[in-house]
Amino acid sequence: MSDSGLLIVVSGPSGAGKGTICDALRQRFPNIHYSISMTTRNPRPGEVNGTNYYFTTNEHFEELLTQDAFLEHAKVYDHYYGTPKKYVYQMLQEGKHIMLEIDIQGAMQVKEKYPQCVLIYIVPPSKAVLEARLRGRHTDSDEVIAGRLAKASAELEWISKYDYLIINDDLNTAIEDAAAVLQAEEKKADRLTHRIAVLKEQYK
Amino acid sequence: MSDSGLLIVVSGPSGAGKGTICDALRQRFPNIHYSISMTTRNPRPGEVNGTNYYFTTNEHFEELLTQDAFLEHAKVYDHYYGTPKKYVYQMLQEGKHIMLEIDIQGAMQVKEKYPQCVLIYIVPPSKAVLEARLRGRHTDSDEVIAGRLAKASAELEWISKYDYLIINDDLNTAIEDAAAVLQAEEKKADRLTHRIAVLKEQYK
Repeated sequence: MSDSGLLIVVSGPSGAGKGTICDALRQRFPNIHYSISMTTRNPRPGEVNGTNYYFTTNEHFEELLTQDAFLEHAKVYDHYYGTPKKYVYQMLQEGKHIMLEIDIQGAMQVKEKYPQCVLIYIVPPSKAVLEARLRGRHTDSDEVIAGRLAKASAELEWISKYDYLIINDDLNTAIEDAAAVLQAEEKKADRLTHRIAVLKEQYK
Repeated sequence: MSDSGLLIVVSGPSGAGKGTICDALRQRFPNIHYSISMTTRNPRPGEVNGTNYYFTTNEHFEELLTQDAFLEHAKVYDHYYGTPKKYVYQMLQEGKHIMLEIDIQGAMQVKEKYPQCVLIYIVPPSKAVLEARLRGRHTDSDEVIAGRLAKASAELEWISKYDYLIINDDLNTAIEDAAAVLQAEEKKADRLTHRIAVLKEQYK
């Protein structure tokens, strides 16, 4: 038996550095595991069912929806995407951490279904910095960049729903901050029921 | 203007390593300031009023008590000891952190008066380890050590009232854990009202 792992939810605008920070966290905390999403879109060449995604049909996905089987889900264009509860809860119960990189809508769904989750919002220090990063990627058109910037501004209203705010000015500092959040959350007394029971035994 | 500092409360049995850990935190976080307690006992040789303690009379202390002027207080033998709110709140408002090393009774008083405080409990991994540490200090009699061990066991019941539990098995790990707690708490979104307002300006 062990205490539950952490369900870590990371959000932030495109260009905030979420992916790089999450990769660094995974390196530092080997106990972080991936969750596998379920989707109704077709596999792309090389994608493996049960590794990249669980691929399924619309009918099956909608049946699972009626069973409240997802921590969060969304319909993007004509396809469903969702995080099945079952696998995530099983991992958490085994004491493993699960990290989800999802948007605000998804994060709010997770918070409702699993209030003990740890919500982290990552954001560059200013619109100018975010714009420079998006332009530096040379992947988005001016229109797409303008849309992302407007979205980033609007989404700041949601920060207060998150537990932690990490302003990614310097990447290494942001990684240290995010790592400190996980290390601290691992020490939260209200999560450590099992550990405290063991401690009491050691003091008998 | 800045966001409030953290009011950090550290408790744990005598021999837990609180002093060493708090000293290490103060070195690492120059923003941590001492609070100065008020007492009715007489100054010892070399103690300076306003530096080591605020020394005052019984009458004055009791008058302050009626004004709810203390974050926490206790009467030990015939003398009062207390943490005046005024100085602490002023420092916090200036964005400075205040760290208090106090017992459980004091910590619970602080939590009631200032619920945003960060409560950290530090404890050795077992009674045997605690006993070895107490014996290693060569300062306490067998009776005193027995009393401290019994108290440490009984006080484990209070851990659930604390925010964080740090098991001081290896001192360096415990220091890293405590430092992570402070670093994470500095990123709590609900404390960063001012920082978030600045951020929103940067995204206009």
